[in-house]
Amino acid sequence: MSITLNSDMGEAFGIHTFGNDTALLDYVDTINVACGMHSGDPSTMAHTVTAALDANVTIGAHPGLPDPVGFGRREMMLTANEIRDLIRYQVGALTAFLDAAGAPLHHIKPHGALYGMLSRSEELMESVCDVAEQYGVPILGLPHTAHQRVADRRGVEFVAEFYVDLDYNDDGTIIVNRTATPHDLVHIEAKARRALVDGKTISIHGTEIDVTVESLCIHSDLRNAPDVAARLRTMVDQHAGIT
Amino acid sequence: MSITLNSDMGEAFGIHTFGNDTALLDYVDTINVACGMHSGDPSTMAHTVTAALDANVTIGAHPGLPDPVGFGRREMMLTANEIRDLIRYQVGALTAFLDAAGAPLHHIKPHGALYGMLSRSEELMESVCDVAEQYGVPILGLPHTAHQRVADRRGVEFVAEFYVDLDYNDDGTIIVNRTATPHDLVHIEAKARRALVDGKTISIHGTEIDVTVESLCIHSDLRNAPDVAARLRTMVDQHAGIT
Amino acid sequence: MSITLNSDMGEAFGIHTFGNDTALLDYVDTINVACGMHSGDPSTMAHTVTAALDANVTIGAHPGLPDPVGFGRREMMLTANEIRDLIRYQVGALTAFLDAAGAPLHHIKPHGALYGMLSRSEELMESVCDVAEQYGVPILGLPHTAHQRVADRRGVEFVAEFYVDLDYNDDGTIIVNRTATPHDLVHIEAKARRALVDGKTISIHGTEIDVTVESLCIHSDLRNAPDVAARLRTMVDQHAGIT
Amino acid sequence: MSITLNSDMGEAFGIHTFGNDTALLDYVDTINVACGMHSGDPSTMAHTVTAALDANVTIGAHPGLPDPVGFGRREMMLTANEIRDLIRYQVGALTAFLDAAGAPLHHIKPHGALYGMLSRSEELMESVCDVAEQYGVPILGLPHTAHQRVADRRGVEFVAEFYVDLDYNDDGTIIVNRTATPHDLVHIEAKARRALVDGKTISIHGTEIDVTVESLCIHSDLRNAPDVAARLRTMVDQHAGIT
Repeated sequence: MSITLNSDMGEAFGIHTFGNDTALLDYVDTINVACGMHSGDPSTMAHTVTAALDANVTIGAHPGLPDPVGFGRREMMLTANEIRDLIRYQVGALTAFLDAAGAPLHHIKPHGALYGMLSRSEELMESVCDVAEQYGVPILGLPHTAHQRVADRRGVEFVAEFYVDLDYNDDGTIIVNRTATPHDLVHIEAKARRALVDGKTISIHGTEIDVTVESLCIHSDLRNAPDVAARLRTMVDQHAGIT
Repeated sequence: MSITLNSDMGEAFGIHTFGNDTALLDYVDTINVACGMHSGDPSTMAHTVTAALDANVTIGAHPGLPDPVGFGRREMMLTANEIRDLIRYQVGALTAFLDAAGAPLHHIKPHGALYGMLSRSEELMESVCDVAEQYGVPILGLPHTAHQRVADRRGVEFVAEFYVDLDYNDDGTIIVNRTATPHDLVHIEAKARRALVDGKTISIHGTEIDVTVESLCIHSDLRNAPDVAARLRTMVDQHAGIT
Repeated sequence: MSITLNSDMGEAFGIHTFGNDTALLDYVDTINVACGMHSGDPSTMAHTVTAALDANVTIGAHPGLPDPVGFGRREMMLTANEIRDLIRYQVGALTAFLDAAGAPLHHIKPHGALYGMLSRSEELMESVCDVAEQYGVPILGLPHTAHQRVADRRGVEFVAEFYVDLDYNDDGTIIVNRTATPHDLVHIEAKARRALVDGKTISIHGTEIDVTVESLCIHSDLRNAPDVAARLRTMVDQHAGIT
Repeated sequence: MSITLNSDMGEAFGIHTFGNDTALLDYVDTINVACGMHSGDPSTMAHTVTAALDANVTIGAHPGLPDPVGFGRREMMLTANEIRDLIRYQVGALTAFLDAAGAPLHHIKPHGALYGMLSRSEELMESVCDVAEQYGVPILGLPHTAHQRVADRRGVEFVAEFYVDLDYNDDGTIIVNRTATPHDLVHIEAKARRALVDGKTISIHGTEIDVTVESLCIHSDLRNAPDVAARLRTMVDQHAGIT
C-alpha cells in the first residue's frame, strides 16, 4: 500500500482565511475538510470541495468541537452520545457538498481536541466508529491508541497517520499545541524519514516509540507548508519506488 | 391526493426546549426538522428523527438562517450562493440522521425569514431548487409566490401549504410574527375550512385571496397546538372522505 | 448578617424562554444574570435587569462558558487568561445594562461547569478574583473549596452559597447535573434547615460535610421553583428573626 | 480641530488573525475595537486594548451585527430595541477591558452592515445615540446621513469620517464591499487630498458630493495598509501644519 499525504483544509471562517490550502492541493493525495463547528462555514466547504476535486484530490470529513473561538483545540466534556451526534451532523453536512459534486466521502478524521480525546477514550471512539460504519469509510488516526484499538475491534478500516510537525507523548498520543517544535525542513524531513523507514519517532520525553505510517499529515497553516509538502511528496514517492 | 398536516419540529436548542413536539406527533403526517442554524442542535435532531419514525411520521428538512438568537426570524441579506450553501449544509446534516435510521428525506421546507425571503425572490428560490433537485424531494411552500413559480419552472415537485395561524399579505406571502392573530380553535377551524373547501382566505388587508391547500401547517409552539392539531386532523380526514 | 436567597436568571436564549424568573423575583434578594455566553442574549439581559430593579432585587453577573448548546454545563479546557478575559467580557457587558438603569453591580457568580472548574482550581479562580477586584464586588461561591481559598487569600469579599437542589461531593464541590435528587419540598426544606442551623449536609457518598450558608441558591427552572422559593423565604426570614 | 486617523482593529476571531493591526498602531490616532459579535473574541479584545495603549492610541468601540461568518457585513433586520441592546452589550464588554487598563472609552463607531443601516435609518440611529449618551462619548460616522442628523439633533458629539478605500453613493452613504476600487497609493492619496482640501469626493455614479473630514478611516486588512497609513499620516500632519 502506498503512503499518502493528507492535510486539514477549509479551516477558514467566513472572511477569515486560514492556511495555504490552494498551494498544498498540488502535493497532497487527500484532504480533511472542516465541517462548520471548529471552522469551515458552508460556503468555505463548497469552495474547498470544488478546489479539491479540480486538483484530483480525495475528500474526507474533519469534524471538530463546537468552539470556533478556540478552533476546536480546547477539550470539551461531551458524552459519547453528544459526540456521535456532533460527528454525524458534520459528516452529513459535508456529504451534501460531495454529493452535489458527484464525489464520494473518502474518510473521517476528527479534529484537534476531539482527535486527542478520542485517542485516549475507547468509549468516545465508539461514536466515531458508528458514523464511519454508517458511511462505510475508514478513519484516519493514531496507531497504538484508542483510535486504532476501537476501529480494529469494530472492523472499521483504519489508516495510521504520522505528524511531522507535532510532538508525541510516550503513549503515542500527540500534543496539539504546535509552538514547541521548530518546523525547519531538515528537522521535519529527518523525522518523517525515521518514521517511514524505521517506524520510530522520539517522544517529547526522549523515549523512542513505535509509529506506523500509512499517511503523513501536513498542517496547512505552517508558514512553509508548501515547501514541507513538496519535500514530503518527493520522499513518499521515492519510498513507494523503493518498496 | 390527500391533504397532509405538517409541523416544524426539533426547534429546541440544547436544554432550551420548544413547542409541543411529542404531543403533535400523534396528529401530523410529516414534520420539518430544524437543522442547527436557527435552532436544533445535533442531539435534538437525532432525538427528533427517532421520535418521528416511532410515530410513523415522514421527515423533511427545515433549514433556517444562521441566527439562533433571532430564531431565524430576522431577514439577513445573503447572496443566492450563500443561501444554496447554507441550505445544502443543513439538509446534508439532517440526511446523516435519517440515513442512520434508515429513513428517506421526505421534503425541504425553509424556515422563518428565509421562507419569507424565498417567497419574494425568484433568484434566491433557485438555490433551494438546486438542493431539492439534488435530493429528488419536493419543496413545501406558498402557492402563487416565488416558491411555486420557480419550483414549477424548474420541474421541482411543489406542495402548497396553508397556514392556519399566520396572517397573509395580498400577494399570498405570510407575516411571520404571530402575535397579531388570536388562535382560538373556532377561528382557526373556520379559516382552515374556508381554505380547504373554497381555496380562499382573507388577507390582513381584508382582501379575499386564492390559496391552494395540499398541506396544512401547525406551529408546535402554539399554546393549544395539540388541540388545534386534533381538530385539523379530523377536518382533513373528513375532507379526504368527502372528496 | 442576614442570609439571602439568590437565583440564576435571564437564562433565556432569544425566543427560547427558561425558568420561572418572573415568579421568583417576588422571593429572592439578589439574582445572577446570564451574560450571553451559556445563555442570555442582549435583549434578555436588558429585560431581566429592568424586571429585577422593578422588584427591588439586587443584580450580580453570572458569566459562563461559551457553549450555548451545552448551556455552559460541559467543562472546557480554558487557560487562566482565557477565563479572565471571558469573565471580564461578560461582566462588562452586564454593567452596560446596569449603568443604563442606574444600578450597581452587586456580585459575580460564575455559572455551571465554569463554577465547578473554579471550585477545583486555584489558578483559574485567580482570574475571577482579578475581575471581582476590578469591580470591587464579592464573589458568590462554595465554602471550603478553591472559591473561598483564593478569595480569602486575595482579600476579595466572599459569600458562601448553599444549594438546596444539588448533590455535594465529599470535598464540598457540587454535582451540576440535577437529575439525581428528587426536589420535593419536604426534602429541600429539611436539607436547607440542616445547613442553616447545623452547618452540615450529607454528601452523595453519605458523608456529613461542613457547609456555610450566607446565601441559598434556588434554580429558576425547578418545576416548583416558586413554591420552593416561598418556603425558603419564610425559613430564612424566621432564621433571621431567631438569630 | 486636528484631523485624526482611525482604524478598525481586533477583528481577529480566535486563531484566525485579521489585518495589519500591529503595523498600523504606529500611524493612527484612535482605533475602533471589535466587540465579539462580528469578530473579536474576549482575548483578542484584551490583547488589542493593551497594544493600543502601549502605542499611545485612544480606543473606541466597534460594535457589529451578530454574524461572525458574514463578518457583520450582511444586513439583518433588527428592531431599534434589539440594536440598542446589542450595541450596549458590546460597548459594555469593551469598557471592562478599558477599565482594567485604566483607559477611558473614546468613542463608538458601528461596524459594517450595521454602520450602513444606521446611515439610512434615523429610528435605528436613535439606539446608538442612547448608548453614546450613556457613556458620554462621540459617535464616528458619515456626515450628511442619518448618522449625523440624529447625533446633531440629540446633542451627541459627532465626528465625521471619510473613507479613502470605499466607494460612495450619491447620498453620502458608503458601499461596504471593497472589491470595486483599486487601492493604489496614488488613487487613495488623491482621493484623501480632495476630501481634505475641498470637502468633495466623486460618488460611484460620478457625482461630486460634499464630505466633511474630521477623521480618516484606514482599513487594517488592505494589503498595503501600513503604506497607506504612512502616507495619510504625513498628509494629515502637513494639513494640520497649514491650517
